[in-house]
Amino acid sequence: MKRAEVKKRVAANGGRRMLGTLAIFGVGLIGGSFALALKKRKAVAHIVGVGRSRANLLAARRLGIIDEIATDPALAVKNAELVLLAVPLGQTATVMEQIAPHLAPRAVVTDAGSTKRDVIANARKYLGSAFARFVPAHPIAGTEKSGARAAFADLFYGRDLIVTPEPETEARALRRVTAAWKLAGMRVITMHAADHDRVFALVSHLPHVLSFALVDQLAGCADSAKLFSHAGGGFRDLTRIAGSSPEMWRDVCLANRDALLEALRGYEEELSLLRGMIAAGDGQGLEARFAAARAARAKWRLKRRSVIGK
Amino acid sequence: MKRAEVKKRVAANGGRRMLGTLAIFGVGLIGGSFALALKKRKAVAHIVGVGRSRANLLAARRLGIIDEIATDPALAVKNAELVLLAVPLGQTATVMEQIAPHLAPRAVVTDAGSTKRDVIANARKYLGSAFARFVPAHPIAGTEKSGARAAFADLFYGRDLIVTPEPETEARALRRVTAAWKLAGMRVITMHAADHDRVFALVSHLPHVLSFALVDQLAGCADSAKLFSHAGGGFRDLTRIAGSSPEMWRDVCLANRDALLEALRGYEEELSLLRGMIAAGDGQGLEARFAAARAARAKWRLKRRSVIGK
Repeated sequence: MKRAEVKKRVAANGGRRMLGTLAIFGVGLIGGSFALALKKRKAVAHIVGVGRSRANLLAARRLGIIDEIATDPALAVKNAELVLLAVPLGQTATVMEQIAPHLAPRAVVTDAGSTKRDVIANARKYLGSAFARFVPAHPIAGTEKSGARAAFADLFYGRDLIVTPEPETEARALRRVTAAWKLAGMRVITMHAADHDRVFALVSHLPHVLSFALVDQLAGCADSAKLFSHAGGGFRDLTRIAGSSPEMWRDVCLANRDALLEALRGYEEELSLLRGMIAAGDGQGLEARFAAARAARAKWRLKRRSVIGK
Repeated sequence: MKRAEVKKRVAANGGRRMLGTLAIFGVGLIGGSFALALKKRKAVAHIVGVGRSRANLLAARRLGIIDEIATDPALAVKNAELVLLAVPLGQTATVMEQIAPHLAPRAVVTDAGSTKRDVIANARKYLGSAFARFVPAHPIAGTEKSGARAAFADLFYGRDLIVTPEPETEARALRRVTAAWKLAGMRVITMHAADHDRVFALVSHLPHVLSFALVDQLAGCADSAKLFSHAGGGFRDLTRIAGSSPEMWRDVCLANRDALLEALRGYEEELSLLRGMIAAGDGQGLEARFAAARAARAKWRLKRRSVIGK
């Protein structure tokens, strides 16, 4: 779409503030749902999508998620007021390097990565003077599905957006990004990047590794077909997230390596404690640990339900 | 109920075979649902419930799950054609010892325990001559809820009943037990007890320990409230079964100790392999393991859905 047309559309939006052009790198579950949420609120005039899979971009355009497909990252960001990087973490540096020289002077860049310290380090290295207009963010939402076809406008509704601004981050940039995610229904929480990475290593990255490991263990047994035939509801729930994107989780594991290794160390200690109790026949010890877990989880669920019915 | 009345009711059942008196030890989720399923099919004339919690037994009677509460195990089994032990595994031996001298000459005894070798060993030790009429069984169904109030007639519908008969087990006893569970909607599968215990250590007991361990790890962190506040859907699913009965799972861990320790050892090896890959930054290795897990799980789910829509 021509720049003039985008301007006309923004001006005609009944006086309500509207983004002109939004460029989305990675039109998958997260990028695609962000696009749909903003379109639903009539909060953006034009969306350009960039990605590795032509088939996925065509599907995204056909589904009305994006308006235009760009094959050249430079052209994609040229007129963009906001650029969202929703690519697997391993591609973040490359995309930043590609777009940095072509960003408009006041363009704001943000991301949706599951880890923050490494994304910030890359932004500092590759975005140059635009680093102050980069807003590190992590929308806490998702399913084990991936791709544009999995996207839906309400994915973020009632969920948390974690932003981890650095001292250089411009207030204006931060406002623009949080305003967009708030329109998608998110609650904004500010954290330090290192704090974010530790917390999500424990509550999200570790659980994914545990889930993948359990399926791999069973799949590696000589009689795996028989084992799977007897697996029930507990196994199903525990391994739901083992259906997640291998590439995305490979990147998360590498990007958040130290915090994840620390979380894994803690888990292995816990497991070793329980193993010791089982080996020693320490029923009292086991029951106490299990009861503590049940109580802690019940307390969490109760609190959750009373907040937003998640 | 008087014995004559039970006989009259059985005779009046339109010519269809009906159990006279069924005694259930432990009227919880499993025992209660078995009662409801048989009542729904008009397959039993009279149900006597025995248990540790008076409140639970009163609720069971009020809800029509049982017809009579017995406080004396001897009286409870006196006229019973079938006796179901649905107590936590740790109580099995005691109950067997209590009922053995009072069983009717042709009474059949069965259980619903999650492990089989230990139950069989106890039955051999305590049931004496009635051992040939003991049918070790494990209905593969349940939720993380417990107690009579959680019971419902369709809990077993479309699920598997594993029976692990011993060489001494009478065919007549086996038929009586499997016929009752089939009426509840179950598919009967025969396995060796040791095989059962290994399979369920891997697909059920291990996942429960993993789930409890994850909650305990987070609950043990100094900032656990903050951590829980950021936990999302993955964590919720992974820890659903950490809401299960601590007593039941303590007993399962102890009863199936060697098979569970072996399963844990395998899991710790798998985890250690993944940890090594994370530490070494082996992205290719990680992605391959994660992709294998995703593929194995997808294959399992597909097969499951095509069988019975579980």
